[in-house]
This record gives sequence, C-alpha cells and structure tokens, in this order.
Amino acid sequence: MLSSSFLRSLGLLALGLLLLADSGQSAPQPKAAWMRGARTRLAKSSKWNSNRWANGSACVETAPSDFQAPKENVWSGLTNWEAASVTRWLFGQAELNLTRSEDAGNWDNSILLVELMLPNKTDVLPYVDGDAAAPTRYAHVVLDLRATVNPTYTDILVGPLPVTNGTTTWQPVEYPYTRKTGGSIRNLDADSDTMQTDFILKITGSISDITLDLWGGTAMGMDNDTLDVWGIDPVWQYDNKLTRWDTFWNYPTDEFDAETLLPLGLFLKTDVTGRDPSKWKMKGWLYNDIFYPTTADFRKAYYSGNFTKLGANVEGDWARTDQQGPVLPMDTATPPGAVAPSGARYSVDHTRKYVEWMDFSFYMGFSRDTGLALYDIRHKGQRIIYELSLQEALAHYAGNDPVQSGTAYLDSYYGFGPYAFELVPGYDCPAYASFVNTSFYVSETTHTHINSVCLFEFDADYPIQSHTNSAYTAKTKNIYFTVRFVATVGNYDYSFSYEFYLDGSIRVEVRASGYIQAAYYANNHDYGYQIHDFLSGSMHDHVLGFKADLDILGTENTMELTTNVPVTENYVWSDHPRNTMKLQRSFIESEDDSRLFYTGNGRTQYRVVNTAKPNKYGEYRGYRILPSDGTIHLTVLNSSNLVDAADWANYDLMITKQKDTEPRSAHPYNGQDVYDPMVRFGDFFNGESLTQEDLVVWFNLGMHHIPHTGDLPNTVFTTAHSGIQFMPLNYYDGDISRQTVNMVRINYDKGNVSEVKTFGQKEATCSADLAKEEFDFYSYTGDVVIRKFPYDPNDPYFETDSIV
Amino acid sequence: MLSSSFLRSLGLLALGLLLLADSGQSAPQPKAAWMRGARTRLAKSSKWNSNRWANGSACVETAPSDFQAPKENVWSGLTNWEAASVTRWLFGQAELNLTRSEDAGNWDNSILLVELMLPNKTDVLPYVDGDAAAPTRYAHVVLDLRATVNPTYTDILVGPLPVTNGTTTWQPVEYPYTRKTGGSIRNLDADSDTMQTDFILKITGSISDITLDLWGGTAMGMDNDTLDVWGIDPVWQYDNKLTRWDTFWNYPTDEFDAETLLPLGLFLKTDVTGRDPSKWKMKGWLYNDIFYPTTADFRKAYYSGNFTKLGANVEGDWARTDQQGPVLPMDTATPPGAVAPSGARYSVDHTRKYVEWMDFSFYMGFSRDTGLALYDIRHKGQRIIYELSLQEALAHYAGNDPVQSGTAYLDSYYGFGPYAFELVPGYDCPAYASFVNTSFYVSETTHTHINSVCLFEFDADYPIQSHTNSAYTAKTKNIYFTVRFVATVGNYDYSFSYEFYLDGSIRVEVRASGYIQAAYYANNHDYGYQIHDFLSGSMHDHVLGFKADLDILGTENTMELTTNVPVTENYVWSDHPRNTMKLQRSFIESEDDSRLFYTGNGRTQYRVVNTAKPNKYGEYRGYRILPSDGTIHLTVLNSSNLVDAADWANYDLMITKQKDTEPRSAHPYNGQDVYDPMVRFGDFFNGESLTQEDLVVWFNLGMHHIPHTGDLPNTVFTTAHSGIQFMPLNYYDGDISRQTVNMVRINYDKGNVSEVKTFGQKEATCSADLAKEEFDFYSYTGDVVIRKFPYDPNDPYFETDSIV
Repeated sequence: MLSSSFLRSLGLLALGLLLLADSGQSAPQPKAAWMRGARTRLAKSSKWNSNRWANGSACVETAPSDFQAPKENVWSGLTNWEAASVTRWLFGQAELNLTRSEDAGNWDNSILLVELMLPNKTDVLPYVDGDAAAPTRYAHVVLDLRATVNPTYTDILVGPLPVTNGTTTWQPVEYPYTRKTGGSIRNLDADSDTMQTDFILKITGSISDITLDLWGGTAMGMDNDTLDVWGIDPVWQYDNKLTRWDTFWNYPTDEFDAETLLPLGLFLKTDVTGRDPSKWKMKGWLYNDIFYPTTADFRKAYYSGNFTKLGANVEGDWARTDQQGPVLPMDTATPPGAVAPSGARYSVDHTRKYVEWMDFSFYMGFSRDTGLALYDIRHKGQRIIYELSLQEALAHYAGNDPVQSGTAYLDSYYGFGPYAFELVPGYDCPAYASFVNTSFYVSETTHTHINSVCLFEFDADYPIQSHTNSAYTAKTKNIYFTVRFVATVGNYDYSFSYEFYLDGSIRVEVRASGYIQAAYYANNHDYGYQIHDFLSGSMHDHVLGFKADLDILGTENTMELTTNVPVTENYVWSDHPRNTMKLQRSFIESEDDSRLFYTGNGRTQYRVVNTAKPNKYGEYRGYRILPSDGTIHLTVLNSSNLVDAADWANYDLMITKQKDTEPRSAHPYNGQDVYDPMVRFGDFFNGESLTQEDLVVWFNLGMHHIPHTGDLPNTVFTTAHSGIQFMPLNYYDGDISRQTVNMVRINYDKGNVSEVKTFGQKEATCSADLAKEEFDFYSYTGDVVIRKFPYDPNDPYFETDSIV
Repeated sequence: MLSSSFLRSLGLLALGLLLLADSGQSAPQPKAAWMRGARTRLAKSSKWNSNRWANGSACVETAPSDFQAPKENVWSGLTNWEAASVTRWLFGQAELNLTRSEDAGNWDNSILLVELMLPNKTDVLPYVDGDAAAPTRYAHVVLDLRATVNPTYTDILVGPLPVTNGTTTWQPVEYPYTRKTGGSIRNLDADSDTMQTDFILKITGSISDITLDLWGGTAMGMDNDTLDVWGIDPVWQYDNKLTRWDTFWNYPTDEFDAETLLPLGLFLKTDVTGRDPSKWKMKGWLYNDIFYPTTADFRKAYYSGNFTKLGANVEGDWARTDQQGPVLPMDTATPPGAVAPSGARYSVDHTRKYVEWMDFSFYMGFSRDTGLALYDIRHKGQRIIYELSLQEALAHYAGNDPVQSGTAYLDSYYGFGPYAFELVPGYDCPAYASFVNTSFYVSETTHTHINSVCLFEFDADYPIQSHTNSAYTAKTKNIYFTVRFVATVGNYDYSFSYEFYLDGSIRVEVRASGYIQAAYYANNHDYGYQIHDFLSGSMHDHVLGFKADLDILGTENTMELTTNVPVTENYVWSDHPRNTMKLQRSFIESEDDSRLFYTGNGRTQYRVVNTAKPNKYGEYRGYRILPSDGTIHLTVLNSSNLVDAADWANYDLMITKQKDTEPRSAHPYNGQDVYDPMVRFGDFFNGESLTQEDLVVWFNLGMHHIPHTGDLPNTVFTTAHSGIQFMPLNYYDGDISRQTVNMVRINYDKGNVSEVKTFGQKEATCSADLAKEEFDFYSYTGDVVIRKFPYDPNDPYFETDSIV
C-alpha cells in the first residue's frame, strides 16, 4: 500500500524484494534465545492439546493428534532444506554473477525470492484425483539483475528438485506471463536507495530554510530529520521518461504509525530517467496548487511577501489508536466472548497443511506475493474449488495534488506474505482458535511469523434454520468454520477470512482497518472530505482481485446467468395481459462475452454449472457466486497511473478458460512497465469457448473509500468490508445442513411442551475457566522470527509448523 | 405470507383481524395453570439476576435493577387496563352495534383491534426534548363492520384515555391515510368462512371422484379430507369483479409445516363478487396449462382417455427439518458458543421498555401490524433516529399458473406482532440473552408471547480495529448490541435484528428461513427451478419496507449524494490530461426527485446531513445510509396484483418530508382495494422541498428468491439475508470506538514484548458453568399465553413485562 521509501522510513523490517539491498536490517537474536522463545510460543498455539477447563470438569477434547492428509500438499511451498539448497546451488552458477544480499550494491545481481513454483493444474489433477506421481517440484526464483545499464527483475525456474548436480538446471520462466521477454521486466528500483539519499534528499535539503520556516523541520538525510519524503507509485512512465512526484510528511513523534496522516502539502517533481544520476533532473515544485518550474522560482515566490503559508499536520491523540474519552457505561466489566467446550472439532495435518471440518477439506498454500491460498477445496470428497486465492490488491487514489493523483498501489509488489503478522488471540480470532505459522524467504533467510493464520469454529449470533408454528418450533445452530490471516501492507491492515458453512457454502470476506493515506487538504475538496485541521481524506478505490477455479463435478463447466425480468404476459387462463416477471436463462459462451458487470437491482444470479451432469429433475448442478457485500470495480476508466497493469480491476466477474499459462491475473512487477506489464490480463480474453470447459472465475472485492472523520485514527473493520459467497445451487437434492445434530425441535400444545428432540447433540457439562482463555500478551512475538541459512537438518523446527 | 384459509388450515391460532370470526379457537387453559407457568417462565428470562457461574467463581453482575428511563414511553402501547376499558366502553356505544367476536357471524359488527394510536411526532418532540406534558393518549380501534351489504374495515380513534364517560368519544380516523373515506375500506373477507365451506369446498367436492383418482384424497369440508384448497392473495379486483383462483394442496401427514411444498397442480377460478352467495360463480378449471371453462368440460376431458395425469407432491423426509443423513465428523461434541461473564452490560427499564447500551439508548414499541419498532434512538444523548420500523413486507410471486402469478402477499395484513413467537435461547439468540415478552390484542383478549424479543451483547469473530507494524500491534474488540425478534408469518420465518456498534453505527438485518411456498412443476420452467418430483421453486421477490425517521442534530436535515465519477482532467502540474476520478456532490432538493435507485458499482454514498451545523472543518455532520447486503426493489413493473397497493416497493430509497399525516407507507388493508388503497405511497411525493426539512427515509430490504434444492426442507438464514447500516459520517471528530477499554496495544522489538497496555479492561477470572447456559427446552411455552378480559387489576402481571 505504500511506497518503498515510506516502508523504510517507518523502520519496518527490510522485507520482500525491493528492500533487499538495505544493509541496516535488524540483526537476528542469538540463536538459542530465539529458538527457545519460538518453541514456547508454538506450544501455546496448539491449544486443543492443553486442558483449558476448570478443575474436574474437562470437556471432551476432540481432534485426533495423528491425523494425516490423504495426499502430499503440492502447493505448500519449499521446505527450508529445499530453499537453502536452491540458494546454495544458485551461488554456484558463475554466469549469474550473484552477490549475497547483504553485500549487494546498486550494480550487483542478487536473489530476491526462492519459492515453490506452483505446479500446473494439468500436472496436479492426475495426482490428486488419481494414482499418478506428484508433479516434479521446481523452485521459482526471482533475480534482481542490476549489474547492467538495463537492470531487470527476472523470473527463473530451478529444478528439478531436490537439487542434484548434473540434473538441476535453471531456465527463464516465461510461460505464465503474457509478456514474452524471457521472464524479465525492467527494474525501476535499481537505484532507489542512492536516488533517495543522493538525489531527492539533496533537493529537499536545499530548501531546508523553507521547510524549517514552514514546519520546523528538515529532510536532509540527517538523523534528526523530522520530515520524510516519498510519493507516487508506480512512477510515471509516459513519453519514455520516468517521472517522480514526491511530497513531505511529518514523522510521528512516537511509535504510532501515523505518518500517512501527516502530509504537508509541498510537492516535488523529478525526472529520474536512466541509471546515470547526473542526468536526473529537478523539474519543479507545487504548493497550494501553484506550480514553480525551478527551485529558484519557488524560493523567490516564498520570500516575495505574498506567499500564502498553510498549516501543518502534526501528530496528536487524534492520530493515536489508544483508548480515549470517557469510559463507556459498564465497559470495564468483561464483555461476552466465545468458548469451545470440546476444543477443536476439526482436524489439521500440520505437516501437509491440510484441514478437515465437517464434510469440507482443503490444503493451504502461502506465498510472498499474496499470502494464504486454499487448494483442492472439497465437500463430501468432491472438489468444488481447485484454487481460491488473492491475486492482487489495488488501492487507486485521486486528488488535486500529484501524489494522491499519481498513486495506484499494486500491493503484491510489497507482498502480503511478509506482512502477515502474528495474530492476537481473543482479538483477531477467538481465544480458543488454532494457529499456524507462516514463513517467507528474504535475503537468504527464512522468516517465520508465529501464529499468523488462525483456524476456528464459531457459533453465529443467529441460527441457520428456523421455523415455528402453533405446534412446534425447529431451530438449527449456525456453526461455521473460518481460516483467517491479516496482512498489514504498510498503513492498511487487510483481514482475509475464508468461511465454510453447514449448508455447503463458502465465503470470502475482506476487511480493512489501520491508517488511511490522507491528503493535504488544500484544493482537494472535490476529492475528499476535510477530516482534520489541514487534512483531506483522499478518496480511493480498494479493488482486491481473486481467483476461484471452480470444478463442479469435474472440470467441464459452464457459466449460467439467470435474470429476473419484468414482463407483460398473456396466459391461457388470463383475460387481461398481466404485468409480472419471469426468469431469463443464458450461458456465457465465450471469452468474447465473459467480462461482466453486476446487473442493477441484483437481478442476475451467476452460477457455475456442469450441464452434462444434471440432477434427477434435469436441473444443472452448480455453485452460485453471490456478491454479499460491497463488491466493486474500479471507478477510474483507462487509469493514467495503471495503463495496462491492472485490467482485472475494471469488471466485476471475469471468466476464462483455465490454462496453465494463465495462472494469475497479475504479477508483482506489473507496475515496472505499465505499458507492457508482465501480465496483461486483457490478453486472457481471446474468444475461446467457455462451454463445458475448465473455467476460472476472477472476481473482485473492495470498497470505494471516501475517508471521513470516523477513519481517524484508524478505519474500522465494521464498515470497510466486502464479501462474496459460493453456495450450492441445485447441487445437492436438499439442504445439507440437515446433517448437523446441533438442532432442536420442541413440540407443544397450549403452553405445554409435549416432546423435545435434540438429535444426539451433546450438552456441555463442563465449566470454562475464562482466565485460561486469556492470551498472555507478553508471549507475543511480532514479526521477527528469522532462521538463517545454511540449513541445519538436525533442527527442522519451523518446517513442519509453518506454511511456506 | 399466506392466505387466511391456509393459516386456518394449518390449525394456527385464530390470531389477528381477519380470523376474528373463527369460533373454534383453542380454549385457554385454566387461569391458575397458565399463570403459574408464565410466572415460572418469566423468572427464567431475567437471566442477569441469577448466578450462572461455577461455584466460587461468580463474575460481576453488572446491570442495575432499579434502572429507569428518563421519560415515559409514549410509543409502547396500551396497558391491559386501557385496552380492556376501551373494549368495554365500545360495547357500550349502541350505534356501533357490536357483537363479541366469539359470537359474531358474517353479518355482525365486531372489534378487530384495540391498540395505542401512535402519537404524532410533532406532539411527542416537545415532551421528549422539552418540558411539555406527554401527548394525550388515544386508542386506535379497527372495527369489522359486516352488518351491511357493503362491509368495511373501519379505523376509529377512542379517547382521550383513560376512558371517562362524558369526555371519551370515538371518531373515524382518516388523517394518516391518503384515502379519504373516513378510515373505511371495503372488506373483501366478510364472507370468507362461508365462502370456503359453502362455495369453494362444494365445488372441489363435486370432483371428488377426480381428486380421489389423481391423489387419493378429497377436499369436501370433511374431517378426513386430505386435501386443502386456497389460492391467490390479494383477490383480483379488475373489471369491478372479485375473482379468485384457488388450488389443491396435500395436507402434511404429521406435524411438520410442509403444506406449502405440496401443491397438486389443479386450479379453480371463481367469481365471488358481492355478498349474495347465489351470485358467486364457478368460472373454470386449469390443469397442465389447459383451461376448462366448466366442470363438465373438465370432467369430460378427464375421462376422455386422452387426459395426461401428472404426479402428486407427497410429504416425506425431504420436507421435514429433523436431522437427516450421516452424523458429521465430531459433530456430537459440543460446538463453540458465547458466554457473558459479567452478565448484562446494558440496562433495561422493563416498565418503560427502554434500553441503554454504552452510549446508545432507545425505546421499544410493538404493534400487531409490524411487530417491534425502535423510537428515539440516541447516541451520547443526541437523537439520531426518531423511528426505525418495519412498514410492510411484500412477497411477490410469479408463475405460469394463476395461483403463483396471482400471489403478492402484503404481510401486515396477517400481522407480524401475532407471529412473533417465543425464542429459543442458544439458538435464536445467545443463551445468556435477556428476553422481553410481547403482547397483542385479539378477540377481546390480550395474548402474550413469552420471551419473544431478545437483547444481547456479542463479540464478533473479528475485531473492530487492527493495526500492526514492526514495533507494535493494536487491536480493539468488536462488541455490539442486538435487539431481535422473529416473526413466522405462515410459512416464512423473518428474523429482524437491530444492531448497535461501538463506532456509532446502527444496522438493520433481515433474514428469512422456514418453508418456501412452492409451485406445481408443470409448465413453470420459466419461473423457477424444478426442485422435487413435481415441484417448482416458485420465483418470488421479498421486499420489506422500512421507515427511518432520522434527526441529525435536530429535525432540519438534507439528503446529500456523493458520487465517484471517472473524469479526464488537466491540472496545473500535469503535462498530459489525466484519467482519474473525483467526487460529485449534490442534494435531493424536493420530493420530485426523491425516489432513488442505487447506482451501479455502489458509486453513490447517501447521507442525511444537517447543512446548518457543519463541523469545525466545514463538512456537514451526518449519517450515511449504506446498503450492506442484498437490498432490492421489486422486479415487477406495474404489478397486476398490486396495482397501487405497494408503491414503496418500486424503489430503493425514498425520501419524504416528515408529516404527521404520512406516518406509514402502508396499511394492512391496502390489498382490500388495490385501485384505491388506504395508503397510496406515491401520493406522499408532491413536490415539497427537502432542503433542511424533517426528513423520513423509506428503504427496502429483501431478496430475489429463486428457490433451489437447498431450500428444501427450509430456506436457510445464511443465504436469505439483507441488511443496511446507518453510520456516522463526519458526525464526530474521530472514530468513537476509541472510547472502549476492550482494546490492547503490545509494543515489541525483535521478538520481545516491551510493553502491554490494556486500558483498564477487566480480565475474566471466573468459570462459566456451561451446563447452566443450556436452556431447559421443556420450559418453552410457544404461542399460547392468553389473558382474557375483563381485566383484573389485582393481577397486572404481563403489563410490566411485555411490550404491547
């Protein structure tokens, strides 16, 4: 969500790709110390093995400890051993001319990423559905090739794995991308560090008299700077130039992460084309909507006596998230909360990252770019969704100033994986949730975030079924299962929940909290509300692109649309024409017509069906795709910022034929060349038939956000929410939630109960010791759990407990 | 949702208006018995006064017992004493020629309803906002005037209250209705009982040879009939005639309420114009889309040898809600559930039906037509919403057969109040919820439904706020407060939840469960899916109309629209035109432009603001109205069934100037004369200014329902859902959820926690005895709690514990 310089400026860990060259990253703790801590913490996360119940009243602990997935998880990433051996092997390939990350300068090549190359679906299906061997494993490696005047980010494959001298090779990987340049795309960030210190901060330092006068601070690259400088993302790329716009921000004065609330309203334009710093040019200043082509012009105007000086945004309690204001009535009493008397009623294979809850099962994968993904989601043993995963998250701003106007973050550039921080039990997830660690590669090390994915069952505050008449009442509990992770990409916290329900439906829920990126207030009235003294809540669209590769009774599927339409109709039995309605059923026949906008008044139902396998009544079995809250597409048409880099954001639902060559709608470096991105999603649509083919549905969640005062200090999850559900529609012969025993029927007559049926459900007989439900906040770890390579096979600790 | 004859056929209590004349209603239990039962039950509902905690570990019980509302509740209905004295007084008015309900025949006048006449807002405000006296109370009485050839339903006022001979009078009430006929509308139901027994069942009995041959049963009005007959609602009213279409249904063979799943496909047309049964005419039969003008024609065809006989829908486990199928893995272990360690953290004045939770407060009212309503909803002492209430619920069907096509239920005709049955703790609401009774008038008695409204706090499964970086994590619990009731109007269970959040927002959530009304399958392919052997899931729109009378910092308000629009724009700092977006702000200036459809892509924000009271930044303080899930308007244009009876269903948001003469968008008898209904909502829109006026926002929730196999046996609440939220937008200067102490901040560095702040929140230290959380199902009462008049002032038991 934020520019790389901002991430640095906040002192965040040097995570991910761009920041590799940072040399100042935090030193790991002594090995023994961090390992002891980690082990303690992991034990806490395995909650269902501990007795959390009051003495003498232990409820049943349900989940088996020896549970195993039916197949290997082919999506779950490289083991530490694999990642380390690939890294070591790469350093042995002289032609790559690699330098270790901590030693690499602007003109060195280095390794940015070593991850599993996701196997092709066509290679996986014979394994997961049949007796074939698991697909051969390859590492997906991203190289940062800067030892050249034309630096690139380059994707290569290394394999087959395990690494064997003689058989293992590397090759450029091009097939999953629409851009056919050998897996390479230009690297606009090659000189970002020196550009900041030796160019930008020199310019901003050159007006330190003005910044001191305006805001009492400087941006000179000094330790006592109180001002930060950063700006648009992606950099402008038109006219074969690279143009930057940056602006000043106040640093917060304490640990609160409020910098994005503290813009100062002075903007700086530079031309940073090419790798020769002597050719980079200062191109002008902007203040209060007046443009000054040179520093001299700006300086002259500033000291002319007629210059209008506007105020500064300064941190205060308004920007801090701590408790403020009078304590609410009775709020110091413990609020309600959920408990799990029987522990986990689901099974997790921690080695294979596989979960079963009721009749659902799925495998988990995790990647640097997009975090958690679910694979081979089955219900009653039958696959419903092959892959359900985030693809990219766009945050497109607008404003009367060039920085807001020029900002269109494509967050997989920063990566969701590295920012999936440890979760807080009792807050992010119920206290009784199970937790799983996640790991990611950075700078020849593996980082692990303890307890960064949670799994839990929950009883909704309403039943799933209800019916009452004068003779009986029948109610069924609405117990559902959730997998969640939260990624804080700079200022914003995205919460992703995948939910499973007793009726066979699956939901994806996205929520946003954290700090907004706000604009300086001057002249921005048409782009947001003024929300503080000198602050405008910069309007922006969040559009989060997802992939759902549905397989309904096999891979041959069709997208059916059913629309409610008003009609005037005559019937054999009507003596007047009748104004009524009927259903219009149609199919999406090819990729020529498969980029859809949701129809008004929710009048169209979207369903993936298998027309070759109707139910016994001749209706197509299928799953409906139902936007449930706030789904949007991008407001901006033909965005000047994005050009062709995020075509997927322009529609609501997009259906393509599944191809191993089109695995993802985006690429983390699409922003490096918006005119010729690695993945131009529009190219997926080339007229292929979608009738009884293997379909992929690309859908968007998101929200139009016009920040208001209620977004200060943080946006709240309750209103920044978007969701979608996949629900069986004529898939089963009836409502399958009838299988649960957690229902009751009470028969009565004239006030007297004559019969109670509880269907074998177990009543809780234990006591929940609520003190034991409380998380020990001092056991929180945060984001610093690092395991250095080379790998020690005698200590494979994280390997079996993290999703990598 | 269902025709009156169907309600009768199910043996439901003879509740409400239409059914008044029924003589066979269930006899009350001996007084002593039901009172003992009721007392016991009420004690159970006052949960926070009992100690539900394990020995020696009682948590704090919070709510005070002597809590009192600041003002009388002027909306909460008549006391039993008032209702009884009005009833007695009316029987003393000879000119009304009243007969007691149980004795009344087709040609007698009787009383259908005695309720509080809701006071005018203009009379209430000086009381609730100032020192004026409470408005004078009047009873709203509905008379069923059938001792005439032109029978009417007639609304009158009786008052002032308390009844005093000499000062109390009655008068027709006309001012709240657009129809100006002295509060009277024709009564199409006057002869419904004799029409059924002496006319319809005679016709259906006349083909008992055919019904026996087709389905093995008869509809003759005999005790051993296995077939029911009922049909369209409202009755067709065109050409100055009254036309009925009825159809046959199998009775269920057990207590399950499955009749609406058992249509049989033979339809019967009759002309029932006028009160002279000798002029009612049989007009034809329809079977398999072939119309037979006479019984002779039908009989001839049936025995011709060429008649195609289709199958019958017969009850089976597919239509029963009990547990079915293999028990799910681990499902017999107790699932998670919520507990409330501190009891209620809110206050209820049971006498005045007033609630305070955190900084919210509101009064509750309850009516026969629409059930629970909330009044004078305040936050931090300032009114946000004067009235938030259901107005009407439409279920508009369509089909190739005349019964589905002719069905457009206006459910307030049946009433939501009488069907708000007792709730089941642990299912409808958390086990620890507080419950309130509701009461309603019928046949000179007061009925009370024990525990039919629930109040509870809940911890959502996700936080309200989250932010994490490399130095700290800050999270805030999302505790919200809910008021809920569930009304089962025939086949469908509607759940209504009013929710209050820490950020100041208020939500309305509607869910539907229960039995669908299905169609016979033949020839209905264009109107639904075939979902069982001979069954079609008849497509229908649920549109539930609500009223939100917002008062933002007083009653002078304006509706502002803010729309995201794509633009191409030049800026002083841009060297190319830029494709971007901006905000378009506008106001709804008059009732000429105030009936709105939601714009595509959710691009418009709707806000009620007070332009005279901007915040310190010059932005208007207001509340946003945000449809959050599945809000729709009616698909059908100019419905032949509804004509002018439900204009409110045709739009998404409708804004009017508040008037005491326009208190409600509907009337329970609108269906009695669809060409000239009591309330023609379109008449509210007469060009009045909406600029800084007292505004009422009429909004719709609902869903397009195309039932599928997953709706058998019951529709589930998870998918049949619609919601809206009212959220502060620039109303406060920041996010007010910062007030709660239920948040945590953890500071850390390199894996070590350096500081934990918990802001005075209390950790639970007690144990929750989960067995004590379990509801004793045998204490359920159901819908039979009757209190006969005359009133006994020595036993005012329900009066203080029910909302009436």
